[in-house]
Amino acid sequence: MDTHQISSAFVHGMAFNAHINGHSVITDTTADGGGNDEGPTPKRLMLASLAGCTGIDVVSILNKMKVPFSDFSIDVWASLTDEHPKTYKNVKVTYRIRVVEADRAKMEKAVKLSDEKYCGVSAMFKAFAKVEHEVVYL
Amino acid sequence: MDTHQISSAFVHGMAFNAHINGHSVITDTTADGGGNDEGPTPKRLMLASLAGCTGIDVVSILNKMKVPFSDFSIDVWASLTDEHPKTYKNVKVTYRIRVVEADRAKMEKAVKLSDEKYCGVSAMFKAFAKVEHEVVYL
Repeated sequence: MDTHQISSAFVHGMAFNAHINGHSVITDTTADGGGNDEGPTPKRLMLASLAGCTGIDVVSILNKMKVPFSDFSIDVWASLTDEHPKTYKNVKVTYRIRVVEADRAKMEKAVKLSDEKYCGVSAMFKAFAKVEHEVVYL
Repeated sequence: MDTHQISSAFVHGMAFNAHINGHSVITDTTADGGGNDEGPTPKRLMLASLAGCTGIDVVSILNKMKVPFSDFSIDVWASLTDEHPKTYKNVKVTYRIRVVEADRAKMEKAVKLSDEKYCGVSAMFKAFAKVEHEVVYL
């Protein structure tokens, strides 16, 4: 059984310094929430987890399929429930990438494999939200 | 309806640079996964979201209740499923804090309120994992 562990130390205000496999990430909240905006808000950070996870899958698969690509970015848009505690409800993941036209089907296969088979963060999101994908070719 | 949006740009290897409400966080994977370990792994980053979210709640509530505290940190331990895609299965959140003995019940109330009422990240985790809490007094 694999296990993961992180530790996050209170700094000041609402800021915490998370130690994650040898790296440090500050989370905070904005002035509205009593914070100093010294780092990303914890909830939005989950969207970066989703982008980073599916991004690794897509890059790995494109590399294995020997598909050259450039200008790759992933946008994540998410709506929140109205009731508290507010959770993500509808999530849209937009992959923006430059590949030659002949490789577009391979890119779509990579996105599908990440979504259905490889990305654990995506699987966790699907437990509480509807997740959609879109590929935009540059 | 509130919405959140982030954008994460591919850098090189398996590294992505996420832009989150004006802040930048690099995600990557370790050499095992073909990465260069330039930032936290996306899945572990979700554990920092959980710590940061419940941390903000607990600090806010303690401040409102005028409870002085110090040496506050939050450890998150999580086990993963054996099958792919690997998701978090059992999660334990340990709050380490120094408060005077008379304020311990207030600290426990703050943890309970965050868990049951305020923390959206915690609510999302409960959709896919069993989440337990523990307070350790320093």
